[in-house]
Amino acid sequence: MLAVRFATTSGDVRLGRLDGDQITDAGAAPAIGFDSTPEAWSSIAAAAGTTHAVDSVQLLHPVHPGKLIAIGLNYRDHAEESELDIPEVPVVFSKFSTSLIGSGQTIVIPREETRPDYEGELAVVICKRTYRATLDNALESVGGYTAINDVSGRRAQLETPLRQFVYGKSFDTFGPLGPAIASVDGVDLGNIDVSTTIAGEVLQSSNSRNLIFSVAQIIEYLSRGITLEPGDVIATGTPGGVGDGRNPKRYLRDDETVEVTVSGVGTLSNPVRFEH
Amino acid sequence: MLAVRFATTSGDVRLGRLDGDQITDAGAAPAIGFDSTPEAWSSIAAAAGTTHAVDSVQLLHPVHPGKLIAIGLNYRDHAEESELDIPEVPVVFSKFSTSLIGSGQTIVIPREETRPDYEGELAVVICKRTYRATLDNALESVGGYTAINDVSGRRAQLETPLRQFVYGKSFDTFGPLGPAIASVDGVDLGNIDVSTTIAGEVLQSSNSRNLIFSVAQIIEYLSRGITLEPGDVIATGTPGGVGDGRNPKRYLRDDETVEVTVSGVGTLSNPVRFEH
Repeated sequence: MLAVRFATTSGDVRLGRLDGDQITDAGAAPAIGFDSTPEAWSSIAAAAGTTHAVDSVQLLHPVHPGKLIAIGLNYRDHAEESELDIPEVPVVFSKFSTSLIGSGQTIVIPREETRPDYEGELAVVICKRTYRATLDNALESVGGYTAINDVSGRRAQLETPLRQFVYGKSFDTFGPLGPAIASVDGVDLGNIDVSTTIAGEVLQSSNSRNLIFSVAQIIEYLSRGITLEPGDVIATGTPGGVGDGRNPKRYLRDDETVEVTVSGVGTLSNPVRFEH
Repeated sequence: MLAVRFATTSGDVRLGRLDGDQITDAGAAPAIGFDSTPEAWSSIAAAAGTTHAVDSVQLLHPVHPGKLIAIGLNYRDHAEESELDIPEVPVVFSKFSTSLIGSGQTIVIPREETRPDYEGELAVVICKRTYRATLDNALESVGGYTAINDVSGRRAQLETPLRQFVYGKSFDTFGPLGPAIASVDGVDLGNIDVSTTIAGEVLQSSNSRNLIFSVAQIIEYLSRGITLEPGDVIATGTPGGVGDGRNPKRYLRDDETVEVTVSGVGTLSNPVRFEH
């Protein structure tokens, strides 16, 4: 099952169930959007309201999390292309939630940023308060999964002293998320295809089986001291093939469209525009 | 004027005006708490509800921000004691908002964390949506200021590959904030005393005139690409004297109380307890 958040032509913000290219209205969206709790899924399953063609509405990022947590260097080939060591514990950073946009919305590159880059990733959504999860029960805290493009301003990211990541990865619109949140029933989060494509060229292609730290390991590590809450999003890391790791380097260009596809979720598609 | 958020003995969460040791009730607190907008201040100024002795209620962190932004190495003596270069642009990192607690609430050290440290700081609260502030108008975006203790688990912070700060600084309760938010009318944010004391021993003592990047410079830099919103909090950095920079090192100890005092705001006081 797929849950979406969308704006109608009259500007109402709604939740809905996505079936093919049809959305069935599931009522007004709460401030957090779709937090992936069992109650939220029940409401999506029971949706029987107006239907909309997906092309007739504006998709929004399906959830507006309290915490947008990201994991760095979590694929061996990406650590290698970044010329950095394979990490021994997860590299935890964050993006500000104000960076989030939905599929179809435009990634706007601030005019100072000369090296904008894509990072296609599998993201998971937390469905219950979680403190000190174990490896055995950690996946019970995941209520859904989706695609994220962890858009990264390499100039800002690498000019920041001590290379703290949050600034260059948190510019407004640098967090495309969606198009939908998929339910996890029967899904093996350890076997999800992730790919990034621009104009038909496949730039990243991997599978979550290649994660250095699995979803369960990430949740166990984070929740040792940090309470995870419903709606929190964890971006699990990007595989090799980012623009900054290529030879020659290949940054985002004005007027092209980046597509991140996660199996079971669909394709997150965002045009790129440079701020003038 | 001082605004607080507090819980009554019956568990209601309220806003109020703090005058001396008396709180005048200003109504039920919204989810964001006190976001320091002009409207929020008007409501605090007009408060005429029940009064409570401050000792009879539980103070809470006055605001629950969408973004809790922090600046690292923003005092020369702290950069030096950390054996790091003086930064040429602000070191931006973040803490998760789930780390926030109020004055009087307990800092709980996760059992893995062997090197818990204090960092007393001036924090400012954003009062309006801000994108591309200039140095001239940046301070118009500040609606209040307060004290924060940027409690830092040095073990987690320094074991994280690439030293991303967010994990070791975001454990639950590692963000004491308050006791109150002070209004900025007529206040010179470039001349605010900040000190940290444990059991009468002054461990940090400085003034915001020693900031490497001023409040206006920080807001100008952040808002180049990131929209700041009402209620967002910026912790401006800690002066020299942190436990990890001392010889011998001096980490937080079980059952002691850390006090951070910011002139015009008051004293943020939090007991420390180790998780068993």
